[in-house]
Amino acid sequence: MTEQRVAVVGAGLAGCLLATLLARRGIEVTVYERRPDPRVAGPERGRSINLAISARGLAALDQVGLRGQALGQALPMHGRMVHSVAGEQSFRPYSADGTQAINSISRAALNTALLDCAERSPGVRVQFSSRLRDLDPATGTLAFETDSGTGSGDGAGAGAGDGAAVEEAKADVVLASDGAYSVARRSVTFRPGFTFSQDYLEHGYKELTIPPRDGDFALNPDALHIWPRGSSMMIALPNLDKSFTCTLFWTAGEFAALTSAPEISGYFRQHYSDVVDLIPNLADDYARNPVGSLVTIRCWPWVHRVSREGADGATLALVGDAAHAIVPFFGQGANCALEDCVEIDRCLGETGGSWADALAVYEERRKANCDAIAEMALDNFTEMRDRVNSKVFQAQTAARHFLERRLPGRYVSRYELVSFTTIPYAEIPYRTGLRGMLRRMAR
Amino acid sequence: MTEQRVAVVGAGLAGCLLATLLARRGIEVTVYERRPDPRVAGPERGRSINLAISARGLAALDQVGLRGQALGQALPMHGRMVHSVAGEQSFRPYSADGTQAINSISRAALNTALLDCAERSPGVRVQFSSRLRDLDPATGTLAFETDSGTGSGDGAGAGAGDGAAVEEAKADVVLASDGAYSVARRSVTFRPGFTFSQDYLEHGYKELTIPPRDGDFALNPDALHIWPRGSSMMIALPNLDKSFTCTLFWTAGEFAALTSAPEISGYFRQHYSDVVDLIPNLADDYARNPVGSLVTIRCWPWVHRVSREGADGATLALVGDAAHAIVPFFGQGANCALEDCVEIDRCLGETGGSWADALAVYEERRKANCDAIAEMALDNFTEMRDRVNSKVFQAQTAARHFLERRLPGRYVSRYELVSFTTIPYAEIPYRTGLRGMLRRMAR
Repeated sequence: MTEQRVAVVGAGLAGCLLATLLARRGIEVTVYERRPDPRVAGPERGRSINLAISARGLAALDQVGLRGQALGQALPMHGRMVHSVAGEQSFRPYSADGTQAINSISRAALNTALLDCAERSPGVRVQFSSRLRDLDPATGTLAFETDSGTGSGDGAGAGAGDGAAVEEAKADVVLASDGAYSVARRSVTFRPGFTFSQDYLEHGYKELTIPPRDGDFALNPDALHIWPRGSSMMIALPNLDKSFTCTLFWTAGEFAALTSAPEISGYFRQHYSDVVDLIPNLADDYARNPVGSLVTIRCWPWVHRVSREGADGATLALVGDAAHAIVPFFGQGANCALEDCVEIDRCLGETGGSWADALAVYEERRKANCDAIAEMALDNFTEMRDRVNSKVFQAQTAARHFLERRLPGRYVSRYELVSFTTIPYAEIPYRTGLRGMLRRMAR
Repeated sequence: MTEQRVAVVGAGLAGCLLATLLARRGIEVTVYERRPDPRVAGPERGRSINLAISARGLAALDQVGLRGQALGQALPMHGRMVHSVAGEQSFRPYSADGTQAINSISRAALNTALLDCAERSPGVRVQFSSRLRDLDPATGTLAFETDSGTGSGDGAGAGAGDGAAVEEAKADVVLASDGAYSVARRSVTFRPGFTFSQDYLEHGYKELTIPPRDGDFALNPDALHIWPRGSSMMIALPNLDKSFTCTLFWTAGEFAALTSAPEISGYFRQHYSDVVDLIPNLADDYARNPVGSLVTIRCWPWVHRVSREGADGATLALVGDAAHAIVPFFGQGANCALEDCVEIDRCLGETGGSWADALAVYEERRKANCDAIAEMALDNFTEMRDRVNSKVFQAQTAARHFLERRLPGRYVSRYELVSFTTIPYAEIPYRTGLRGMLRRMAR
């Protein structure tokens, strides 16, 4: 392999896994992260607190030996617990046999595990507090704002200066794993031929906390809790400290309508009657916690080779949310991003380490899959907030599980293939439901 | 009306009409244009040379007394002339009675007429060679690169300096009519909640010229000529100087496949046999002329009120292509942009001159209409390149025209409502075809 300077932008889940996988191939990598070291500074407020890791994410973590550690810090959720307006709960297992689970894990804990793993890898250098300001893909120049000067490499985080400064770096290959609002992506957003869309849902999200009650979980910790309310919903995932993180998915209008403490608690008492007393700081938390956006990003191409006369130019590849941010309703954003990293690693292996060839194969293999999960995630919002509570949906789920048990391997649900297998996302719509069953039986 | 500083970015068709309409309301406007005065410098190469103006554009021009002047410089096209591979031509009138026409006009001539009209309006100042570099909507500060320093206001174009310089201006209301690749729009592109997409077709376009032959038009000037070739096509529109401007709509692969002069002329002789000898500089022009992109821009909202602590902030409204660039296959891009301007003017009238209220109504009224024409324009590409030559399509068109004649006012085609009426675009799919006829007869 020719010696190329490789930069990874963003030390989130994908950036850290990617750096680790590349290091294993003997590739030196510098990872630039805009935040200070989260192991020192603590997690950023307002970032979603936990996520559901399932088969795809676990398979990716397995590549770097982190599967067991992740599962050790996670809580399995074997099904959905649906809460009616009246406060009744009903449990719906995720798989027909009831054995399969998705795993609630703290984003910060998982990120820390991956960061440690990356920094332990020879050839990986992580530079914190380096906010990408500008990338010129034609020259491979990255300009960073280094507001605290905190560098790292050995995890010591020795401060090197105060105040904002700009540092430049050069790279031949820039792997942008800097999230849905990727700054690296901006450098190609207005190039002719770059197809790009950002679609915001009318709904935003806000997090609330159900603390432990009498030293134990206040709700069943073996479930993802859902309060489907038609046009909107609330969900709750368990945390290791026996609390739950609740997330409201409401329209901007709904959020804005509640302003005073009596309005807030009155509204919750009416619509979320069974939890209103489980959230002690409801009105305060509601008023203080920000409303986050829910965006779907689609773009193409993901890999850009830009050159200009007199400059060698660099290759920019978009990875994870930077390439395909999706809404969280299938719990697949992180899982999908981690799968991207494994695919890049696989492509490098298959193409003998040629970045140009590997990245070309990477984007072609992943695009249709990521488009497919983006659609399924949007569909699942309707299902969760609206259909999950209907008699028809309940009957359908029961019928599906019946078919799965009676025709094992023939009838499988979309949810199971997404969450409990690593079958490419794009194949799932053709393999599931009645259509899939008929195709299978015809063989 | 409160006194507000109004800036229009872009002195294209929409910018000039808008400035004129605002001046009529006693509003002072500064129009900033990145190019030098086209009346002095001549039109930019590579920009599409002519366009088809129809009912909507004419109605808008009528508002400022330019309808007659525009028609005087235009060539009516009463139908399509379809050219087969064998070189046979068949004429299909646009309307059932054969009287309706769309009008081929030089973009430069129409722009000049509108520029003259704007500059004659008291209170309008046009500042050329002012390329918007940056807009801060929170303060209303516009930064322009003024590379030649050529100012205007009386059309004299007195030079004021050499080399690039940056000039700042302030505005309370910024009306961005700076086209599909709007720089003003970039200032809000990455704001949370701004839904935005840019979709490039696989096809690009390249222009060629059929000069006059023996002092006359080489083809029938009363038609829009089409060479439908399945996955791609060529069209030609007549110019006042008796030439035709041809436009190839081919995929990037098709364009790239032809490199040598013999390849180029050989390919044209095979697929465009009847015109190959009408284009004397075919291989040269083909090699020299650029390939343009075809993009659809969709975004929302179009109106942004941005404020920041300690600053009053400005209102930014997107107009024309900056809000909704569409592909050219319905000949409606310019017509639609001019309609936007009339709507803004109407809204100012209805809301008593309140910018906030007027622009809120403007975007609500126009969005669905512009989405509708964007879709119809994409549909029409398939129809023009593929279906227009088929026996089925010909039979459908004949049947449509028969119904239109037998059931006057009951059966109308989509093409006619788009091109020969000012019925809102969004209503057209519900008014046309069999669906529309049945609704009409049921009344």
